[in-house]
Amino acid sequence: MERKNRKSTISDVAKLSGVSIATVSRYINDSVGVRPATAEKILNAIRTLDYQLPKDSPLLKSGVCTNIILINIPSISNPFYNDVVRGAQNAAARHGYYTFVNVQHLNSGTEGPFISMLKNINPCGMIVLNSVSRDLFDKLYPVIPFVQCCEYTENQDLVPYVSIDDISATRGMMEYIFSTGHRKIAFLSGPDRYKYARQRLAGYLLSLEEENIPVRKDWIIQLSDLDFSIALSSIQQLMSRSEHPDAIFTVSDVLAAAAIQGCRLAGLKVPDDVVVTGFDNVDISQISHPSITTINQPKYQLGYTACELLIEKLKVKDLPPRQLFLNTELIIRESTKNI
Amino acid sequence: MERKNRKSTISDVAKLSGVSIATVSRYINDSVGVRPATAEKILNAIRTLDYQLPKDSPLLKSGVCTNIILINIPSISNPFYNDVVRGAQNAAARHGYYTFVNVQHLNSGTEGPFISMLKNINPCGMIVLNSVSRDLFDKLYPVIPFVQCCEYTENQDLVPYVSIDDISATRGMMEYIFSTGHRKIAFLSGPDRYKYARQRLAGYLLSLEEENIPVRKDWIIQLSDLDFSIALSSIQQLMSRSEHPDAIFTVSDVLAAAAIQGCRLAGLKVPDDVVVTGFDNVDISQISHPSITTINQPKYQLGYTACELLIEKLKVKDLPPRQLFLNTELIIRESTKNI
Repeated sequence: MERKNRKSTISDVAKLSGVSIATVSRYINDSVGVRPATAEKILNAIRTLDYQLPKDSPLLKSGVCTNIILINIPSISNPFYNDVVRGAQNAAARHGYYTFVNVQHLNSGTEGPFISMLKNINPCGMIVLNSVSRDLFDKLYPVIPFVQCCEYTENQDLVPYVSIDDISATRGMMEYIFSTGHRKIAFLSGPDRYKYARQRLAGYLLSLEEENIPVRKDWIIQLSDLDFSIALSSIQQLMSRSEHPDAIFTVSDVLAAAAIQGCRLAGLKVPDDVVVTGFDNVDISQISHPSITTINQPKYQLGYTACELLIEKLKVKDLPPRQLFLNTELIIRESTKNI
Repeated sequence: MERKNRKSTISDVAKLSGVSIATVSRYINDSVGVRPATAEKILNAIRTLDYQLPKDSPLLKSGVCTNIILINIPSISNPFYNDVVRGAQNAAARHGYYTFVNVQHLNSGTEGPFISMLKNINPCGMIVLNSVSRDLFDKLYPVIPFVQCCEYTENQDLVPYVSIDDISATRGMMEYIFSTGHRKIAFLSGPDRYKYARQRLAGYLLSLEEENIPVRKDWIIQLSDLDFSIALSSIQQLMSRSEHPDAIFTVSDVLAAAAIQGCRLAGLKVPDDVVVTGFDNVDISQISHPSITTINQPKYQLGYTACELLIEKLKVKDLPPRQLFLNTELIIRESTKNI
């Protein structure tokens, strides 16, 4: 990533934009008296050089200097997004960009208005945490520079992304569950339009195959949303059957917390009768009792890196897109134990 | 609230907008071949009449029919907002509006770009869950029709709002704590730019006064954010002192969950050594162990009602603004008990 050793000056901005220092100063301090085409040149130079505007510049206050990065997340019901957004916001602030968080499921019903609003807000770039279908990807690509974070569109080499290796993280957790002596493992996940859901399912199936454990389709549950209440009743039902799993792999700590409660309602104790694992390592994994064995995702770093990738892309147009994977970590707590 | 007994028809839209049915139909089905002024008239009639567009109308897909309601929330770290937003979204959908959720703290640094973006997106109205200073209120009022939800700007009779009576809810909880025999009560809250923080503090102080309990300023903690980790260390410190409270009133279930953990880290058991109360009744109050005694806020209804107030305001311009308070409910769980 490009790094600068010294701060850019107003004279650098003037040089790069091809106008006089007096003109740049007038634009920065009064934001008037400059023709639109000149303003555009100055704004581009300001962004390219990471030039720090004076704090009282009307450009900062008016938002006319649209150094706005839109952060799109699918929902607010998953606490996973908190730290990711915080990371992205901090990286943006460091480079003088202003962030605007938008919460929006992207599907055929919402993508039209979404693209239309993108054109209205006209952010300089976007960080997308949503799942983006290939079809939507092709619609977004000409409209706005963007990077993907956590979720990414498979088989594309056009936009940068940062994510984790879901298959390998899942296999690591499955190996740990096997090591505790449990082999009757249920899988609790979200809708498979999400890459994480597809890849964690793949990891789960590969692990079972490696251990020669037959797949029980009725133990694979894909919820419509990562919602506590939906998961609770679903697990209560599953665990009330005469033959039930002795382990529940979940794709989120929220679901794991629900699974623990669902087991309790079905008269089963975690971890004595059933072991439960989460994913993400959000606060809930410590609030829950028993506390939840989980996989830590580097949430803050995912957001921070995504934003850096975007800013890199904004500055150097023809850079080959980088696609990064950050490390995860198994965290063992009270919701699992050896048989 | 105005209620309709029959669905509006295309002929109603034509009549109200003063153009022919053929023109309305052309606009609705092709969205082209109509002059901007005519389009505006038709759009206004569609909104006024709650006319349901055909599902395949390009107006719905393109977002050109800007029946967009912006829902502004201060942060995504508080799960309280989930159900409020869901309520508002469902009410909006029922009336054929499309919602756009924006997450944004509003302060002197962000309000300039925020207002500037409002003008770009140009939603037909806004539901604000943020605290809005009188100064910002005066800036927003001319820009966009809005209603306030949960938080409201005190001493204004210009915009509608729906909220709860924080003082009375707090006093109810304090009375309950007194009834369990606890009198050394700490107060854990958020920043006092929020109405909820100011009013719950007022309720707390009034209750102490009524019971002739002297105020301990060092037991009143106002955090910079309703954040689990910040609250955890703050409570651990408070409870590690030789003289500590025997009860903790918190303004959110997230803080209560942190308080319970903080007590544990300080070597104290909830509810045996200390009782803890929450606020909101979000999932965490059941996930936490012990489960949390709390005040239920009608979250979904708050959002739903706010949206109905906004739509009412959009339809009838000169309606005196209604300002509503919904009921709360004390829910007793395991984090409190009699001495």
